[in-house]
Amino acid sequence: MARLYHVPLSPFCRKVRLVLAEKRIECELVEERYWERDADFLRRNPGGKVPVLRIDGQTMAESAAICEYLDERHPEPPLMPKGAEARYEVRRLVGWFDDKFHHEVTARLLYERVNKKIMKQGFPDSRNVKDGARAIKFHLDYMAWLLDHRRWLAGDAMTMADFAAAAHLSALDYISDVDWHRSEAVKDWYAKIKSRPAFRGILADQVPGFPPPAHYADLDF
Amino acid sequence: MARLYHVPLSPFCRKVRLVLAEKRIECELVEERYWERDADFLRRNPGGKVPVLRIDGQTMAESAAICEYLDERHPEPPLMPKGAEARYEVRRLVGWFDDKFHHEVTARLLYERVNKKIMKQGFPDSRNVKDGARAIKFHLDYMAWLLDHRRWLAGDAMTMADFAAAAHLSALDYISDVDWHRSEAVKDWYAKIKSRPAFRGILADQVPGFPPPAHYADLDF
Repeated sequence: MARLYHVPLSPFCRKVRLVLAEKRIECELVEERYWERDADFLRRNPGGKVPVLRIDGQTMAESAAICEYLDERHPEPPLMPKGAEARYEVRRLVGWFDDKFHHEVTARLLYERVNKKIMKQGFPDSRNVKDGARAIKFHLDYMAWLLDHRRWLAGDAMTMADFAAAAHLSALDYISDVDWHRSEAVKDWYAKIKSRPAFRGILADQVPGFPPPAHYADLDF
Repeated sequence: MARLYHVPLSPFCRKVRLVLAEKRIECELVEERYWERDADFLRRNPGGKVPVLRIDGQTMAESAAICEYLDERHPEPPLMPKGAEARYEVRRLVGWFDDKFHHEVTARLLYERVNKKIMKQGFPDSRNVKDGARAIKFHLDYMAWLLDHRRWLAGDAMTMADFAAAAHLSALDYISDVDWHRSEAVKDWYAKIKSRPAFRGILADQVPGFPPPAHYADLDF
């Protein structure tokens, strides 16, 4: 069976978990306190990050590379479209969320509020939190603009781009940092993706010391 | 003709330039002072970053997505291998250089020494420069380890992974921040890639206020 080394609220791990579940690939989850730099873990992954996936006799790192691999090796259901233009748009948006959204929002809210405490790295920097809270509004508006003329973020089919976005937003929703009242379109999109069977594992996550709000796992939020 | 909005020393722009040149796609280069946040530029790219490529009637951002698109639409010569495992390895390494190497090395050396001055953002932070100078040694050793049993970084053929790595190293070499004496294998690899016709444009770059060292454009460095 495949095995994923992860931390529950990492958006990169969540993206891989969603892709695995959507493709019905059975996978054992192992929590990895990667910041303690355990020697065994570093041997598996010199990058020292999560997610790390053991599958098909290989050990893999880098979530974007893992997800493309899973889609190529397990093509059903497809999470990448067929044409080069459409594939570009999916990859652009995966990059948008995993790079831009990550630095401007996730790192400033989730990492300040949760990771710092878990990793014993001090208190949240209030300026970062403020900047993150401002930046997420811009990003939600950008998503609303995309969804104004598309059913899913990258086009009319659900793709990796939706999982990348949902991975970040679900982790932020765990700490009540997403204002679902800001855009009807974004809320409808999240309700659709949240109700997929692939999402169940993520909605069942529990991080000690950080109980999720009641609406987190509620499909009618 | 295609048009690339870029800055000369950006590793992400250099990677796209190398792919375009390797595939013999003619492209006009337009320097973009993206940090001045020109309204026209932001209209083309809400992400506010370079590179931005105008090609095939589209405007594209995010260098990894652009490079995969170019390889799919212009498959000759191929810069991605065929099998899923081999493609994974290329993407893992592109992610390694564009994320890990970028944050640990490029941002701490190139951005501290050059970008801060060009963007009028103050003086280099000496702690960052020191950390970057230490980190590049680890990365050169990692490359040497890969090249110990492979002809190119991701396997026996030249791929996007080599261009991603060469894009970062060439930008750092422009400010003499690469110690080519550290590893014979890495130096040989760089000599091979540097001598390709696709590299000529990058070796001719001149940044006002930052003349390159003599060895920068020398194929026998």
